[in-house]
Order: sequence, then C-alpha cells, then structure tokens
Amino acid sequence: MKNYFKQINHMKNLIIASTSTIHGSGYLEYLLPTLENHFENCNTILFIPYARPGGMTHDEYTSRVQEAFAKINKKVIGLHEFENPTEAIEKAEGIFTGGGNTFLLVTQLYQNNVMEVLSNAIENGTPYLGSSAGSNITGISMQTTNDMPIIYPPSFKTLGAIPFNLNPHYLDADLQSKHMGETRETRIKEFHAFNSTPVLGLREGSWLDVKGDAIILKGALTARLFLQNQNPEELNPETDLNYLGKI
Amino acid sequence: MKNYFKQINHMKNLIIASTSTIHGSGYLEYLLPTLENHFENCNTILFIPYARPGGMTHDEYTSRVQEAFAKINKKVIGLHEFENPTEAIEKAEGIFTGGGNTFLLVTQLYQNNVMEVLSNAIENGTPYLGSSAGSNITGISMQTTNDMPIIYPPSFKTLGAIPFNLNPHYLDADLQSKHMGETRETRIKEFHAFNSTPVLGLREGSWLDVKGDAIILKGALTARLFLQNQNPEELNPETDLNYLGKI
Repeated sequence: MKNYFKQINHMKNLIIASTSTIHGSGYLEYLLPTLENHFENCNTILFIPYARPGGMTHDEYTSRVQEAFAKINKKVIGLHEFENPTEAIEKAEGIFTGGGNTFLLVTQLYQNNVMEVLSNAIENGTPYLGSSAGSNITGISMQTTNDMPIIYPPSFKTLGAIPFNLNPHYLDADLQSKHMGETRETRIKEFHAFNSTPVLGLREGSWLDVKGDAIILKGALTARLFLQNQNPEELNPETDLNYLGKI
Repeated sequence: MKNYFKQINHMKNLIIASTSTIHGSGYLEYLLPTLENHFENCNTILFIPYARPGGMTHDEYTSRVQEAFAKINKKVIGLHEFENPTEAIEKAEGIFTGGGNTFLLVTQLYQNNVMEVLSNAIENGTPYLGSSAGSNITGISMQTTNDMPIIYPPSFKTLGAIPFNLNPHYLDADLQSKHMGETRETRIKEFHAFNSTPVLGLREGSWLDVKGDAIILKGALTARLFLQNQNPEELNPETDLNYLGKI
C-alpha cells in the first residue's frame, strides 16, 4: 500500500518549521500531532543531522530525534549511518533535516553530493520535515539564514522546494533596545538591495504546510513577508503562499 | 614631514571599533577625540564604502562619513571615486572602512583585487580605522560576523592584521528571552567546533588600539574572549591581546 501510494502520488509534501522547539516545551513537542499525520505512511524516518547544533556529534543529535519520534512510534535512522547517502535518501519513506548551522548543513549536503538527490526526493513526494536550518534549505538560497559562517560552502544555492527564501526564528525589532547592531528586518532589506527573491520571516511556532502547489501558513502567528522595494506585510495563518512563485 | 614619518615608521597603527555609533550619539561621535589623534598626520582619509549598510549608495555613505570627519578637519574621499583602487590604497595617508554587510564588503574587496593591497598598506603603517564590518575584516577570517550572507564571497579569509577573529556588536544573552534562536555565545561556540582561531566579542563602545605589536582593549567595557575548548573569559580595558598570536 505504501509503495503504491508513493508511485501514484508525486505531490510535494513538506512541513517547514521555524523552530524545532518552542519556549517551555520539549524537542518537536508542539509539532508531534502534525507529524503523526505527516509521516502516517512511514515506519522509519531518515534523519539528516549535518547541521548539528553546538557541534554535537551526529550520533548525539540522532539520539535526540529518536527520542522525540518514539512518542509517535516512528523509528529514526541517521543519514551518517549509511555508506551510500544517495541511496538512503532515494529509498527513504520520510526525511527530517534538523536545525543547527546552515553553513555547515549546506556544506555537507554538497560534499556528500546529496543536494540534488534530496531535491528530487522532495519533488517526488517523499514526506519531508525541516526545522530551522533544515527549513532554510527548502528555499531558493540559504542567504537569509541567521547563522554564522563557520564553514565555507561551495554554494549558497539550496533546494528550491518553495519559490522564495525563509528567515526562520524571525524576530521583531526590540524597540526598547539600545543595541546598534542591525535588526532582522534591516538585514533582510540589505538582502533585497541585491536580490529579488521574496523572503518570509517565519516566527517561532509557525510552519508551512506544503501539499503539491499549496503552501499554507500554519500556527497561531502571522508571518512577515518581505518583497523587494515594498513595505513588509503581515500574513495571516492559512494564507496560501503559492502566489509568490508567480510574481 | 608626513612622508618622512611614513618612511621610517612601519608600525601597524589601527583603531578597530565594535560600532561606528553608540546609542544616543552621532555617527563616530564617541570616537572623534581618538580619531583626531589617530589620523593626526593625515589631511585626507580614504573611505572604503563597500559594506554600504541598508544598500545605500557609495556616494551617500561617503557623504555621511565626510560630515563626521569634517568635525576634526579631515577630508574624506571614497575609494569608489578612483579609477585605480590599488593605487588609491597604496597612496592613502589614512584609511577608514565603514560598517554594513561583511559579505558584501569582502566580496567587493576581492572583486576589486584590493584585499592584499589593503593588508600591505596596514602592515606598512598606514593609519587604519575599521568599524563593525570594517573591523571584522581585520581578523583572520570573516567567519564570526553577525551579518546575513546576502552575496557569495570568493573566500572568507580576511586581512589578518590581528592574530584572531572579532565579533563586533557583541551581545550578551538575554536571560529573560523566550526566543529559541541561538545566542551569540552559542554561535561562537559552534565556530569553535570547527575552527581554533580565538574570537574576541567586542561590545559596542569598545575598540582595539593596535600600535605595532600591542593590541590594547579600549573603552569602558570588558570584552569577552572565546578560546577553543575553554570557558569564555572577560578581559578588562587596557589588556594587551598580543599574546593571542602566540597561543
């Protein structure tokens, strides 16, 4: 049944989350009901641990994810455990790319020659979950990441599974702050001084539910949309962002 | 007299500031007394506007800097006004690289083939001022910048005028925050999972005064030093950071 489903249904199927963890809650906890549904046809989820936050090991990171997914009775295997990562991705029932450092994640995806393989798996309908850095890479480029360039990637180009860029963990300017460093909004405006790609600031607790051509904003919060040479706009939950690919 | 000074004195001579502007004060205002002394032998300062914050034009940015330096009777010419940027840097009496986006700054320095020229000018004793992005590039690499990767530079390697990396606008973690994005300290620790270069978190209002081999922390605040596999350490003003090149 599962293979039959995969063969006839090539619709894109992604959950793209701003963060793995919301304040005061466990790892992935707020998303588990959504994920139970998202991965309903999967027994095992392939985990891509490359972004490994704080430099933790791939094994440590995979253990953390195994613990979370055990709550919805899913097995998790780390991509680093396979000799042939291409084959592992091609055969995966479902895929999760965790957060951490986006520069590191993108570097490792290129070094292991799996950026395109991953893109194809997503295009072919393999259910995908991204959080933070793992969400960043679903955009056209990683150029609106918040992360530090701790390693030099061969390219900033990413999966392009959605027709715009993301800024996960989007943070509104603190109007009381005496800090003179750039706000998130200023940084995204700088991006638009040189790039025309739309950018969605996705606040913690928000995610995108991509099913085929529909790209629906989920969660309780609005998201902040930045278009080149336009004032930013707040989008309500349930907005379909598909139109951003047509402007 | 000025040329004579330049010929016999090849001591490095830099002011490396965390920020151009502190809260509630004008552009470069808090630094002007220091700069009057720093640039005492210069009539004209060459300004490198490549990082242009918020995508402002090179001309706009240069005007802002001209206004600030007029208060200490210095002329300012933008590097973009010269046909031959290499010659402009080699002949400069003094150089200021302003803040903005470090990825953009580094990209343009490489594209215009002046990274090495600028490094040589600094080694030869041309007085240099950097603020924010312009300070970032005095380190070994730009890999501890806070900026967004809005453009892909040919390399992350920078001037190496000091034997460590900087994190300008260093910001302490807000312990009250419910935001789950990484703190500055977490990001620097991630850098140290892959790199051994020391990192100095330079708070707004602090600067480094480099004279020959001495690298003295100035301003009223402590700075936070991060060494690989060690706990961060607070350094007092007047500390000489020269020893970081020997560890």
